[in-house]
Amino acid sequence: MTSSPPCSSSAERGLSAAEIAERFGGEVVGDPGRRGHGLAPLHRAGERHIAFAVSRRHIDAVQSSRAGIVLLQRDLVPVDGLDCGSRSYVLVASPHAVFAHLSTLLHSRRVFGPGIEAGARVDPDADVEASARICAGATISAGARIGSGVYVGAGVFIGAGAEIGAGGYLYPRCVVLEDTAIGRRVIIHPGAVIGADGFGLAQEDGRWIKVEQLGRVRIGDDVEIGANSTIDRGALDDTVIGDGVKIDNLVHIAHNVQIGAHTAIAGCAGIAGSARIGSHCAIGGGAGILGHLEIADYVTIHAMTLVTRSIVESGHYASGVPHQEARAWNRNLAALRRLGRSER
Amino acid sequence: MTSSPPCSSSAERGLSAAEIAERFGGEVVGDPGRRGHGLAPLHRAGERHIAFAVSRRHIDAVQSSRAGIVLLQRDLVPVDGLDCGSRSYVLVASPHAVFAHLSTLLHSRRVFGPGIEAGARVDPDADVEASARICAGATISAGARIGSGVYVGAGVFIGAGAEIGAGGYLYPRCVVLEDTAIGRRVIIHPGAVIGADGFGLAQEDGRWIKVEQLGRVRIGDDVEIGANSTIDRGALDDTVIGDGVKIDNLVHIAHNVQIGAHTAIAGCAGIAGSARIGSHCAIGGGAGILGHLEIADYVTIHAMTLVTRSIVESGHYASGVPHQEARAWNRNLAALRRLGRSER
Amino acid sequence: MTSSPPCSSSAERGLSAAEIAERFGGEVVGDPGRRGHGLAPLHRAGERHIAFAVSRRHIDAVQSSRAGIVLLQRDLVPVDGLDCGSRSYVLVASPHAVFAHLSTLLHSRRVFGPGIEAGARVDPDADVEASARICAGATISAGARIGSGVYVGAGVFIGAGAEIGAGGYLYPRCVVLEDTAIGRRVIIHPGAVIGADGFGLAQEDGRWIKVEQLGRVRIGDDVEIGANSTIDRGALDDTVIGDGVKIDNLVHIAHNVQIGAHTAIAGCAGIAGSARIGSHCAIGGGAGILGHLEIADYVTIHAMTLVTRSIVESGHYASGVPHQEARAWNRNLAALRRLGRSER
Repeated sequence: MTSSPPCSSSAERGLSAAEIAERFGGEVVGDPGRRGHGLAPLHRAGERHIAFAVSRRHIDAVQSSRAGIVLLQRDLVPVDGLDCGSRSYVLVASPHAVFAHLSTLLHSRRVFGPGIEAGARVDPDADVEASARICAGATISAGARIGSGVYVGAGVFIGAGAEIGAGGYLYPRCVVLEDTAIGRRVIIHPGAVIGADGFGLAQEDGRWIKVEQLGRVRIGDDVEIGANSTIDRGALDDTVIGDGVKIDNLVHIAHNVQIGAHTAIAGCAGIAGSARIGSHCAIGGGAGILGHLEIADYVTIHAMTLVTRSIVESGHYASGVPHQEARAWNRNLAALRRLGRSER
Repeated sequence: MTSSPPCSSSAERGLSAAEIAERFGGEVVGDPGRRGHGLAPLHRAGERHIAFAVSRRHIDAVQSSRAGIVLLQRDLVPVDGLDCGSRSYVLVASPHAVFAHLSTLLHSRRVFGPGIEAGARVDPDADVEASARICAGATISAGARIGSGVYVGAGVFIGAGAEIGAGGYLYPRCVVLEDTAIGRRVIIHPGAVIGADGFGLAQEDGRWIKVEQLGRVRIGDDVEIGANSTIDRGALDDTVIGDGVKIDNLVHIAHNVQIGAHTAIAGCAGIAGSARIGSHCAIGGGAGILGHLEIADYVTIHAMTLVTRSIVESGHYASGVPHQEARAWNRNLAALRRLGRSER
Repeated sequence: MTSSPPCSSSAERGLSAAEIAERFGGEVVGDPGRRGHGLAPLHRAGERHIAFAVSRRHIDAVQSSRAGIVLLQRDLVPVDGLDCGSRSYVLVASPHAVFAHLSTLLHSRRVFGPGIEAGARVDPDADVEASARICAGATISAGARIGSGVYVGAGVFIGAGAEIGAGGYLYPRCVVLEDTAIGRRVIIHPGAVIGADGFGLAQEDGRWIKVEQLGRVRIGDDVEIGANSTIDRGALDDTVIGDGVKIDNLVHIAHNVQIGAHTAIAGCAGIAGSARIGSHCAIGGGAGILGHLEIADYVTIHAMTLVTRSIVESGHYASGVPHQEARAWNRNLAALRRLGRSER
């Protein structure tokens, strides 16, 4: 019933500075045999911890830290200036990336054994790999296929014909509706809803008529979807999320949207129907992207920006307005309106 | 356990061009006996499919399409220019509306048989019509009334005294709290929460005290509510959603809001307490509407607009700022601030 | 199975004007023995109801109201002008606060008996106080501790090692993930997700690598969290929500955020990672607060404002743009762009 017991075995054994350097292509300064058993920020780390530093702003914190091992950006400081008395350094090209890999090696919470718990509802026509875990209160509908090593948490709903690729982790209470196709190693956080109907409406005599949404949602490998985010199924064609896309909480992705590989979308952003977002983009929090437009690869959209037309060149785009003291802001608004009127 | 098996019988039988024309007041050009068995977009349609075209932009796609039947906007093209060799046309006033009706006729996913599944929790004091379906893991509390032909999906929670009108469809994991009154043929998508407490607070000595929310939520007929949207119960009076209102995903509707019939609200919009929205309005995605104001009928609010005072005339209203390349936008912001200061 | 039967006993007995005055430090004008049995707005109140008035705008409504008891702001009107024929007044310093207290005394919906319902899944290694109520379909994981008088609704998920302080009320389908620590008398509305992973990513060769989120969420006493809101666990340190914080629906609080006591956050607001918000702040609906900044105590952020840098002084801050008729707004936008270009 434990949803995700922390994996302590790797943390107990730990990793030596030499092992870290070998695994991630780094260079050790100090004792290569010193071991780290867990991760911590510089200010809180002890001798059994691994911390990291990527910029000169961190130098003071490194010096006052008690971390046993520090992952240090190569060329950040002269090696002969490092104090190696009670600490080892591992110099790497990207300390943050190494830290990320170590976080999974030492601390993954997503560890579990296989089996279908009593109280799970698995349709006899569903296909569940033996290495998968289906928790009590989860529903697996007819025709669904659950791949090897998949975790389906308590109260998750998997609709008819949906497919969850190997290594997926579905947190409690997320919903994957019928015919959704999800790739490998996808993490879906609680409350996320994949495959609900798109907002498809036709007008008739002043009333809205529902347009049934006949497409699906297709999601690539290594995607992560945040808590309470929603990705709607396509109207006729599919909604498509590329490999490696990372989606934060409370994000809305409408029907027929396509998102290229390795794009990241921050919390509270909304993407309207049939928008096509490129690869390697970064969409800021609370941004809104209108429908039926295209965004090129490597585009960064700042927080709370409204994208109203296609963006064909990579770069940074914005329309968010930084706060001011309210009276100052009101004066600006008044000035703007006078300007608009005077130029009419 | 299958939540919503696609209804294939209607699709297998299909509809002839003549049947479509008769049912929806259209005129056939070409073979009236040609049958369509499903819907598809022009570019993907085959001879068994029905597609549609509403504007001159679609003409080329019509000509290269393999669709067996095309619903065509009346008077869009001269009839004698239509190639009827392997295709029939049905000329109608609103192809999109006809397409919408056909989508439900041929493809509705919301088809199910009656019954209370083992594992559903139905209070003995609840009143469930025999034709309703209550799925495993759903909870129906005391005094709740579930109308004829209602579908209550897995893990749905229906609170005490709540009422779901005939023909409703409640997707898995939505929540309808106590005393909520929901009309007929209402669709509620996964994760939506109807009837949670409004954000009612009073100040006392610098602390917030909760004001119990004593009103209800009342929802009309033919309403659709998107995934993870929330509609709060009223503080003293009720929150009221009119007939035919369509609400997209992740929309927040606060306590005591009233929304007139046939208004549509796009994703991520938020409506603050006691706002009164008219009928036939369209609220754009990410828009925010402040509390205690009124919006007239037939008002369109553009995406990410902040409505700060009442709107008494129908029309289009906006305050969303279209994106620019970030440096250009920053120059505009700087110019605006200089302007505000110079006019102080 | 009834989630929250209204508590009618207090309402039946009611409270006299004298009892109200004594309990909340007020003064009675009129019959001190007159009893109120429930709350209502002035326009709908009858002789058994208590209503309230705080401003001169309400005076007419008071005069035409049929309320048996009116809570009146002290010094709002001359006492000798009050008509006490069929009504009693209680003059208090803060009628709204008294009304709030009375709402809980007379009308709380959150009343229930203790016990673990059949169909609740409680791990043998969880610690549940005898006075708690665990509803069917809820999951309590190993090592979780559920305090006295806690209500855990249908379908709630409590992760391993999570702690719910005494008097908490968890509405159906909310999710509290592992190791989350929640104080006393905390109310969590349906669909809220506490303790999901923060959006922690590192770049490597153009791909995002997940950074495991090793911190927790710690929540103080008397906090209320709205429907479908999300509060992420910290990356290394904890995400911390202070005592008395009130959070509306669909609010996103990212990893490592700290929120001071008695701050209120309205619907659809988003707070990015590691932001530190002071005490007694008010964050408007749809506001966005960027990461790694600090906001002082007693700061008010207006609706849909984007906070881009630290705020060191209490006061009101804004950047939301009030709507205009769309053509007028477009003229302003055009003028702004010309201005930005001319000053380049």
